[in-house]
Order: sequence, then structure tokens, then C-alpha cells
Amino acid sequence: MRPMGIEIERKFLVCGPGWRQGQAQRYSQGYLNRAAERTVRVRIAGEQAFLTIKGRSQGASRLEFEYPLPLADAQALIQLCEGPLIEKTRYTLEQDGLRWEVDEFHGENAGLVLAEVELASEDQVITRPDWLGEEVTGDERYYNSRLSELPFSRWPR
Amino acid sequence: MRPMGIEIERKFLVCGPGWRQGQAQRYSQGYLNRAAERTVRVRIAGEQAFLTIKGRSQGASRLEFEYPLPLADAQALIQLCEGPLIEKTRYTLEQDGLRWEVDEFHGENAGLVLAEVELASEDQVITRPDWLGEEVTGDERYYNSRLSELPFSRWPR
Repeated sequence: MRPMGIEIERKFLVCGPGWRQGQAQRYSQGYLNRAAERTVRVRIAGEQAFLTIKGRSQGASRLEFEYPLPLADAQALIQLCEGPLIEKTRYTLEQDGLRWEVDEFHGENAGLVLAEVELASEDQVITRPDWLGEEVTGDERYYNSRLSELPFSRWPR
Repeated sequence: MRPMGIEIERKFLVCGPGWRQGQAQRYSQGYLNRAAERTVRVRIAGEQAFLTIKGRSQGASRLEFEYPLPLADAQALIQLCEGPLIEKTRYTLEQDGLRWEVDEFHGENAGLVLAEVELASEDQVITRPDWLGEEVTGDERYYNSRLSELPFSRWPR
């Protein structure tokens, strides 16, 4: 629960299986707005639900507001969302003092695995886990809001 | 504070000055999404603030969720909103057991005054106050979300 703040986050592709450990949680999420200037996300994570509003990214930083939602509200709100929902399993791993969130996507985004790490400052040095692949911070194709519009399975190859 | 529900509401134009009474409160509001299928509104009313999400209208009914927001969050969120903000003064009047909300718009919507009444059922009989004008329930031009896109002062005459 993070009522207001700036989120500083780096995002990476993943190679190898080493990330498939730690706590796993199923997520369903949809968007009440997918515009990069103001994404409004409804997320159901098990019995918990959240409404999250984000502004446009500036480098690795982004204004972010998150509020808990009653589960019943979230189940109704997710029906109001645009386009297909995002379905994924999130693995949370602690490594070298960093907390990594690795998302394995399902459905139309199956095959995509993304790792995110939240940082205290944009220049914080990170130790790369051996399963970490190419950095994709700021690549809007990998935004979950974009993956809802143009899923990974439909990307031009 | 209304975490989840169906809102049943009728909306009217206003004629004559009889509505300008009762408690008056200044409102500033903007939209994180103006689409009729899923409006997401940030409203600041004095020291209070709310996030309100509404589905598409079906007759006089509409799915509505409202959550209180910290004022500081609302002040930042309103900056993320699309287009110009809606500025209005709301007069709240009790009459014949009904609670009327009369909105006098300012800025680019100056000249427009709208009365709304919330009902327990779609067929509830209402006693018309003498200042009540034409009914505009369901006329999307009068949605606040639309008035933010196409303000009253720019309507074709």
C-alpha cells in the first residue's frame, strides 16, 4: 500500500531457469486506461486487489499511486477494463539485497518472462543475477498496459 | 463513501433562481478516462477528495464505485487528467423528501446549471421543484466527462 510516490524501476528480459523459485502468486489485471500518460490498473492478486494509477515514465522513474480495493469491487471493475486481461504468475526473489519480481506471462503473452527491480535511486548499482537478460527499461512494448493491447504472441518477428 | 453500487439518477436543466440556496461547495474535477464505458474521475471538494469509477449508463442506472483519496494524492492525480478541469459550485437542497444536487458550472462551462436527483428505483415518482426544467437524463452531452471535452460555451447554437 503506497498512497503516493515516485517509482524507480528497471526492467529486464530473463534467460535461463534460475528465476523460477521463491514465492509465486497469480495475477489478473486489466486497464481502465492504457494511455502512457495515465494508466489506471485494476489488479487481483489472490484474495487481494489494488487500483494503481501511474503517470508517464521519465527515465526509470514514474509517478505511482496505489490503493487497496475490496475484492468484490475489483471483480466488477475488471469487467469494465479495456481489451483482454493480463494473466501472469509473479515470482518474488531476494538476491544480493535486492527484491526481484519476475513475471511469467500466460495466455496471449505466454513465452514472455520479465524481471523488475525497484530501486531507491536511478543510479543505484545492481548485482546482476545469472538469469538476467537484456535490459528493457523504458521500452514501451513491454509495459503491461501495451501487452494488453498488443500481446507478445502477436508481435512482428 | 460508496464502495460499490448501482447509481440511479435523473438529470434536469434548471430555470429560474429558486435553486440557489442550501449548502454550496466548490468542486474541481478531472478525468483519468472520459470514455462512457469507464469514466475515472478525480474530484476535489474543499478538503475532501474522491476517486470515482463509473460504467456505461443503462437507462437512468449506472455502475458506480467511489473511494476517498488523500487530498495530496488528488492534487497530484488531477494533474494527470485529460483536458481542462471541470469547475463548478454544487448546491445541495432537500425538497419533498428528495435530495437535489444543483451544479452551477464555471469557466468554459459557465451558463450551464444542471440538477440531479438520486433515486431508489428507476420508477420512483418525483415531485418537481418549480425551478426544474427539461429532463436531460441519458443525454451524453451533459455528462461532466463530455463537458470536459466539449464545454458548454463551445456547443453549436
